[in-house]
Order: sequence, then C-alpha cells, then structure tokens
Amino acid sequence: MSGKIYVVAGPSGVGKGTVIKRLFELDKNLSLSISATTRQPREGEVDGVNYYFITYDRFQEIIENGGFLEHAEYVGNFYGTPKQPVIDKAEEGFDVILEIEVQGAMQVLENMPGAKGIFILPPSFEELEKRLKGRGTETDESVMRRLETAANELGCINMFDYYVVNDTVEGAANRILEIIESRRGIEDDEE
Amino acid sequence: MSGKIYVVAGPSGVGKGTVIKRLFELDKNLSLSISATTRQPREGEVDGVNYYFITYDRFQEIIENGGFLEHAEYVGNFYGTPKQPVIDKAEEGFDVILEIEVQGAMQVLENMPGAKGIFILPPSFEELEKRLKGRGTETDESVMRRLETAANELGCINMFDYYVVNDTVEGAANRILEIIESRRGIEDDEE
Repeated sequence: MSGKIYVVAGPSGVGKGTVIKRLFELDKNLSLSISATTRQPREGEVDGVNYYFITYDRFQEIIENGGFLEHAEYVGNFYGTPKQPVIDKAEEGFDVILEIEVQGAMQVLENMPGAKGIFILPPSFEELEKRLKGRGTETDESVMRRLETAANELGCINMFDYYVVNDTVEGAANRILEIIESRRGIEDDEE
Repeated sequence: MSGKIYVVAGPSGVGKGTVIKRLFELDKNLSLSISATTRQPREGEVDGVNYYFITYDRFQEIIENGGFLEHAEYVGNFYGTPKQPVIDKAEEGFDVILEIEVQGAMQVLENMPGAKGIFILPPSFEELEKRLKGRGTETDESVMRRLETAANELGCINMFDYYVVNDTVEGAANRILEIIESRRGIEDDEE
C-alpha cells in the first residue's frame, strides 16, 4: 500500500511550520519533502536536510526534464519541489507532506491529481495581522504588503480539499493527523 | 454598552442554520435579525418571527429610503435585511446575529464598518459535496451548480474577519460564542 501526498499551505504568518513540526512528533509514518534551491546555504543548513543546494544550471536542467512538481523564483533565487523523491517516499509507504506557499501548492495540486491540499487558516484575520506585526522586524509598508498577499492567499482556499484553523498548534496538528489517518488504507480509486 | 453586530455566512450546505440554532441555546444575550421578503408565507410561517412578509411596493420603498443593509432577488421574490431593527437591538445591548448568504454578507460588511464577518467552513470540500448530495432532493446538474457556487463562495472568505470550521455543531457553536465573548466589553474604537 502506497502512502499519500499532502500539500500543506496557508497564508504567510499562519504558523504552518510550527504545526508541521508538531505533526511530525505525533506520527512517525510521515516524510517531509525537501525543496531544492539555488541560493547559498546559511550557517548551520545541511544539504539534503534543509534543502538540496544545487547550481542554477542543474536547476534549469531539472525544469526542462519536468523534474519539479512546482518551482518559483524569489529575490533572484530559485526554489523547487523535486518530483522523484516525493514519489519514492510515497511508494515506500510514507505519507508525504509538502510544506509550500499557496501559489506553489496550487501548481502541485494541478500536476498531481492524487495529492490532497490542506489549507491552514488563522482563527481571524486580526490574529494574522498581529502575528505579522509581532515579528517586529518589518516596516509598516512591508507588513501592509504581506497582509495584502495574505488576503489574496486566503482567497485561494477553494483550490484546497481540507480546511484547518490554527487556533492552537496542538489542535491544528491533531486535526491534520485525523485527516491523514482517515485516508490510510483507502485506495485512491475508491475515493 | 451597545451590543455588536455579526454577519454569519458560509457556502450553501455548510450547516450554518443548525450551528446558529445551537448558538442561541448556549447564550441568551443574542438577537437574530429577521429578514423581510415579498414571497408568500409558507404553512406555519409567522410574520415577524420567520420573516417580515411585506408587499413589493413596500419593499421598493424601503430600498429607496436606504432601509436595507442588503437585499437580493431569488426566483422572482425579494429578500432583505432591515437596518433599523438591527441597530435598535444592538443599542438595547444585544449582540445581533445576521444569518445571510455570502454575497449579502459582503454587502453588509461594506455598509457597516462596525459589523464583523464570521465565515463558516466545512471540514473539507468532499464533506460539503456529501451534504449537498445527501439531501437527495436534487438532480446531478443542480448539485454540480451548487458545488460551483460553494467553491466561489469559499473564495470570498478573505472578506470576513473570523474563520470557523463546522466539524461538529457543538464545536462550531462554541467557537462562535468564544469570538462574541472575547469582544464583549470592548468599545469599537478600541479595536
């Protein structure tokens, strides 16, 4: 029995990293997809753990061979989700989690009909605003731009299959686990 | 201290009627807004309880006087939310709940800056599909059309302030109550 593929996304600031970290503590039959990037490793980052660090030429080659489930450019660096490791891990029986931003998530959901999208929402827009402002590292203009992006990202929720409100990390992680467990043992074509 | 105004909406089939019924059992300081309509009362419906049943001419007069917070036409009948009773009830100290469909809810949120929007989501799109199909009273084509409408309505979520997943009626009703209680005693201009 193969594992299943889940794309977990949500607006910037919703706290999906923390929720996914907790999810992996709760369940051991999960595999987290690792992204490839052309950017330089930061201190402490390990190749094959945090990212696959690859060259620009190699990145383009993978694009040409259709080797990414999704890819995008941010401030001059490229990021992508390699397809083969995701398929391999699922065939080994792991449920594979892809933690990516909303636009990339929609690319994956389009490219992989078997993948299911889980959208993480803040309990309120005000709460999202607080969390983005609370970082305290950004200018007002940058916070405003992030809030606008977050509102647009929220509007993409109808492309996803499951909806989880991140009111508490524990609650949200358990809710995702319930979704994953409810689909274990079900063949894709039975749905 | 005045009460506050909440617009509760969500896609067709999400079960908001049942959630709101439970909410009113849990809290006695709430008032449910009553809509006006030009359609004929059905058996058992009481004027001023289920709806205000009014004539077409009266309905147009209220529109012209700006007396509706929102209004719309469905299959030849008009429906609207009268403004004054909502304001009166809030001034009496009740938190007022408006249960309307998504398009109407957005009209109210635009017209009343103090009103907050609470969006009710299904736990998954599949669940919404099941509920709509489960009614068993509709053709496949009609179900498809409803699902398309539901997907569009989900995409309007970014116009709302609070997000509640209806996984259980009890859970959703309590979550709405938490939202309302968290704002009691806060003046609008403190937010």
